[in-house]
Amino acid sequence: MVIAMEPNATEEQISAVIARLELLGFDAHRSTGTERTVIGAIGGDTHTIDLRDFEIMSGVAEAVRITVPYKLASRTFQHEDSVIDVGGVKIGGPEVIMMAGPCSVESLDQTRTIAERVAKAGAKILRGGAFKPRTSPYSFAGLGEKGLEILRTVGDEFDLRVVTEVMDKDQISVTVQYADIIQVGARNMQNFTFLRELGTIRKPVLLKRGMSATYEEWLMSAEYIMAGGNHNVMFCERGIRTFETYTRNTMDIAAIPVIKKLSHLPIIADPSQGTGIRAKVVPLSRAAVAAGADGLIIEVHHDPDHALSDGAQSLYPDQFEELMQQLSHIIPVLGRTFCA
Amino acid sequence: MVIAMEPNATEEQISAVIARLELLGFDAHRSTGTERTVIGAIGGDTHTIDLRDFEIMSGVAEAVRITVPYKLASRTFQHEDSVIDVGGVKIGGPEVIMMAGPCSVESLDQTRTIAERVAKAGAKILRGGAFKPRTSPYSFAGLGEKGLEILRTVGDEFDLRVVTEVMDKDQISVTVQYADIIQVGARNMQNFTFLRELGTIRKPVLLKRGMSATYEEWLMSAEYIMAGGNHNVMFCERGIRTFETYTRNTMDIAAIPVIKKLSHLPIIADPSQGTGIRAKVVPLSRAAVAAGADGLIIEVHHDPDHALSDGAQSLYPDQFEELMQQLSHIIPVLGRTFCA
Amino acid sequence: MVIAMEPNATEEQISAVIARLELLGFDAHRSTGTERTVIGAIGGDTHTIDLRDFEIMSGVAEAVRITVPYKLASRTFQHEDSVIDVGGVKIGGPEVIMMAGPCSVESLDQTRTIAERVAKAGAKILRGGAFKPRTSPYSFAGLGEKGLEILRTVGDEFDLRVVTEVMDKDQISVTVQYADIIQVGARNMQNFTFLRELGTIRKPVLLKRGMSATYEEWLMSAEYIMAGGNHNVMFCERGIRTFETYTRNTMDIAAIPVIKKLSHLPIIADPSQGTGIRAKVVPLSRAAVAAGADGLIIEVHHDPDHALSDGAQSLYPDQFEELMQQLSHIIPVLGRTFCA
Amino acid sequence: MVIAMEPNATEEQISAVIARLELLGFDAHRSTGTERTVIGAIGGDTHTIDLRDFEIMSGVAEAVRITVPYKLASRTFQHEDSVIDVGGVKIGGPEVIMMAGPCSVESLDQTRTIAERVAKAGAKILRGGAFKPRTSPYSFAGLGEKGLEILRTVGDEFDLRVVTEVMDKDQISVTVQYADIIQVGARNMQNFTFLRELGTIRKPVLLKRGMSATYEEWLMSAEYIMAGGNHNVMFCERGIRTFETYTRNTMDIAAIPVIKKLSHLPIIADPSQGTGIRAKVVPLSRAAVAAGADGLIIEVHHDPDHALSDGAQSLYPDQFEELMQQLSHIIPVLGRTFCA
Repeated sequence: MVIAMEPNATEEQISAVIARLELLGFDAHRSTGTERTVIGAIGGDTHTIDLRDFEIMSGVAEAVRITVPYKLASRTFQHEDSVIDVGGVKIGGPEVIMMAGPCSVESLDQTRTIAERVAKAGAKILRGGAFKPRTSPYSFAGLGEKGLEILRTVGDEFDLRVVTEVMDKDQISVTVQYADIIQVGARNMQNFTFLRELGTIRKPVLLKRGMSATYEEWLMSAEYIMAGGNHNVMFCERGIRTFETYTRNTMDIAAIPVIKKLSHLPIIADPSQGTGIRAKVVPLSRAAVAAGADGLIIEVHHDPDHALSDGAQSLYPDQFEELMQQLSHIIPVLGRTFCA
Repeated sequence: MVIAMEPNATEEQISAVIARLELLGFDAHRSTGTERTVIGAIGGDTHTIDLRDFEIMSGVAEAVRITVPYKLASRTFQHEDSVIDVGGVKIGGPEVIMMAGPCSVESLDQTRTIAERVAKAGAKILRGGAFKPRTSPYSFAGLGEKGLEILRTVGDEFDLRVVTEVMDKDQISVTVQYADIIQVGARNMQNFTFLRELGTIRKPVLLKRGMSATYEEWLMSAEYIMAGGNHNVMFCERGIRTFETYTRNTMDIAAIPVIKKLSHLPIIADPSQGTGIRAKVVPLSRAAVAAGADGLIIEVHHDPDHALSDGAQSLYPDQFEELMQQLSHIIPVLGRTFCA
Repeated sequence: MVIAMEPNATEEQISAVIARLELLGFDAHRSTGTERTVIGAIGGDTHTIDLRDFEIMSGVAEAVRITVPYKLASRTFQHEDSVIDVGGVKIGGPEVIMMAGPCSVESLDQTRTIAERVAKAGAKILRGGAFKPRTSPYSFAGLGEKGLEILRTVGDEFDLRVVTEVMDKDQISVTVQYADIIQVGARNMQNFTFLRELGTIRKPVLLKRGMSATYEEWLMSAEYIMAGGNHNVMFCERGIRTFETYTRNTMDIAAIPVIKKLSHLPIIADPSQGTGIRAKVVPLSRAAVAAGADGLIIEVHHDPDHALSDGAQSLYPDQFEELMQQLSHIIPVLGRTFCA
Repeated sequence: MVIAMEPNATEEQISAVIARLELLGFDAHRSTGTERTVIGAIGGDTHTIDLRDFEIMSGVAEAVRITVPYKLASRTFQHEDSVIDVGGVKIGGPEVIMMAGPCSVESLDQTRTIAERVAKAGAKILRGGAFKPRTSPYSFAGLGEKGLEILRTVGDEFDLRVVTEVMDKDQISVTVQYADIIQVGARNMQNFTFLRELGTIRKPVLLKRGMSATYEEWLMSAEYIMAGGNHNVMFCERGIRTFETYTRNTMDIAAIPVIKKLSHLPIIADPSQGTGIRAKVVPLSRAAVAAGADGLIIEVHHDPDHALSDGAQSLYPDQFEELMQQLSHIIPVLGRTFCA
């Protein structure tokens, strides 16, 4: 942390800052310039410091944190990429991994029909919602445990791993019996009680970015899970909220290379949620892979007109196959391997 | 709902839209203009319709919802203001109600010292955190039930009602034993499992606005609670996330008159979270009241330099008293009564 | 400027940073901590430094500017408030000044009718658009010089100063012949050619905040004008763009106390543009004054149903009078004087 | 336009809306449902209507525009892609076109060195700033006409077309003597006086997206230029402003397929401005092309450490060559041709 004093700060004000730093366990290094004094805080624990506590002191112009508040998730502390092994499917390694399936699990037949197609096209992981977060209390909220059973059955049938969203810590224990990856939705990214609980399990977690979460907040949420002992965390960029409402969200494709620089953990992209419009899912899928994503998670439905949720953003199986074809040519350009 | 066709839409495309509307239980009214055809959907339940399902149909230019997706929270369905009675303190009526207290409950002494000052100055409700959401897993997370006990004891001592945040549905049952109002934090505004659970209790809920929640989403979250049977919901504007980072959040003061138009429920403002800077809390408090807020919730600490959280945005008791003085002159301008 | 090195930065990398700093005329102060090395840059001219030039150097974790890039606009360099004298009307002093009038000047009669009412109610400055920025090339674009003549004639008749928008530097020379204050619209806030030109005149400038301008960018635009020699700059908060589209813009009321802290220049609020909805103009006007604005600029029209622009956000003269009544009670609470 | 009345709207209120519509030249079609009345406005000119004029009428719930306010720029009115011929280089056709060069033209030698490299790697168009918009009045502002001369000389030497930014309408006449494409910067996207002037020339215009411009506003700005008679407009996505500040802007990659759907005009992407960080330019370049961009505009500098502006976001020539290699494999996946 560095504290810049106002040009006209008094000796008394400077001493007060230094005293406060020392009280908090820092060594204070003072640099007296022609224009102003700058105090560097060395040592101590800046992770839990509130910068504003210094900024409101008399004579202080600005306080700046120069170390990041996360540690386990940071690439500074682990240089090599984390590769997460999901029953033999490796995420974060040379292969780019495809996750696909319906938005909601609606029935065994529906899920099987879709799973067969996406598996054949090269997907390695089956997605599907059993517990559905809905903005309206009057909307379909998912099949619950029945949906989990279907996912497991169908996943096993087609040798697919299973990823599904958990909305609440009470749903964790039942879900881990069926699923291979636990998904945390955007609206739960800062549900800290839930994150702590996810730190105590050993299943991988797919951590979606909150609707208006900064990179640092997102990394801090991973840190929550990792601090509990579960280091198998993957990020998932799914679009952020901006002033533009034509697309459901604005996909922040730059998040992919940025997160890969800041952290050793894998990052997946979700162009279905990220755009909310079927016709935009394919171009954004290509873009996310071209930018370096470790995988994609895509909604596919064989009959989206009758889907119980998000049919408008689900690809037809034929579109998914064509996308997979296209990706098979793009992925080698990045020196990576296509999973199919 | 209204569906506008493209200027060159075919009869077949128009018929397909009408057929789909009728399948969903709507009457379709067709208006054929010189430039394009517009189809109005009358009757039916637009609350759970996904507009995008129509927008992706061939020949459709745009689908527009013209009824709001919330009902119980809407002023269309209840014209008169809801007044929420919290043990005799009435929120949403002619009086403007002040809620004040420490960010976190740290000890009985601390809470008592602060409560005494704010009660004397005219606050009617004591705020204080026992369960604290923190972005870092390494930060102080609150005293838990011990904190609730302190709030109740001190509240009773100074005839103050008690409002405190609950972070998770498991904390509801213990909290309702101590608190008079349950606060839902910004990060939980769309934790739907939690909202459903709050619908089953009968204590009033203070529903903070999510960091990037639209008015409609915020109203839908109130609808969740009300749909469960608990109609005692108050909104709390606490600032939104924008591109400007100088203040912690950007307070959306216009939310106050807008929500009062759209809904019959009361709205409170939180200038402490809304700005994150002590020196800005007083001007924004005056602004919120001048814009028509039904009350304020303000962080006050007698020794903010040693506060365990958010000291930088806590008012000194003297500042709170001065603010109350100022508000006593502003409130009558709006034809309302000062609570003190 | 402070440059924090990565924990594992080499001596060579540290030396490279120091060398670059010295090349640019800074003294480099090195602090070697247990965890990392921090280099403070003292002296030199940080105003034109691009921080990213350091951030991309090997071994650098972060570069942070600790001095603001503006100077003439900064309160650090001028402690006392600037008071701008507009033909005897003083802006930024104890009086809160009201500017009011039609969105567009439509005719002499229209302008006179409105001016008479607002003058009587206490406004000191007449607003009105002669050159209108319109998002559609097919919309009414203002009366041009004819509109300026009307403003001057009517202003003189009712002893009102005149403020009007200039959209382009070519319009400056004609406008200064008629108007007392030149308004720079939000979309021109970073039209640097225009700003430079405004630095060469001596009429006061009302500088509206760009739709997504940070405080720093706004202050830098004032700096542009001041650097040219014209120190008579007033800021005008008119709402920013956020994800919420219910109101035309989101008024950032906190900008008022923040700008007053960072700068000695006056700040005006525009609740008409800030909300875009007539019914929200009055509550937001009260809020802006309660937060400490030095004045308001408000659109008033006696017949808004037939206004050629922005009728929906124009107050009726009766509403303006009532607002003035209310403000006359709020302003003394802040220790200021009502202008009327 | 469609106007939805409140459920309890009176006959009088409904008649008032119909009367106002008819006054404005619309046919009003009334649909009376069980819950509410909906009025469709057929014919008339909705391009210049202010929806809010209806929304504030008594009894009106909502007014919705169902036709877009732009026409010449809309794909509805021209189905086939516009292909812009820039001295034989065709933009918007099957070829993906690369524009590259320094941020600022600094000297003949610098420009020639860079141009030689980018031409050899396959760029068809030379970029370079002669008039530079700078947030600080104290920064380097470009070489002016001298810079234009250099661009032309070097462009001719390597058979490159020339694109350069014009900041003000007064700079148009000199610039058209040297450049092949006139660039409008983000901060000028709604400088309407300037746009009108660009409508009168016949050189192609590269229209950058404003920092917080919606797709509709961007299309309207193209409409301004086209309404003046100049139909050679290309869009350029260069990142928008969001809450995330790690990257300079947030590139909205989805804008590429969206704009291509809404308009027949070409769209170029600028990953240099879009990210502001050299290491992110290559991944975002690949992403933009994979999403369907008609071309890229990229800053390249052989000695970015000594660049006079934006060195931190300029690629080294070697990086540019490698990027071109990668793109040559990605472009055929989209059924397009690599320009080199």
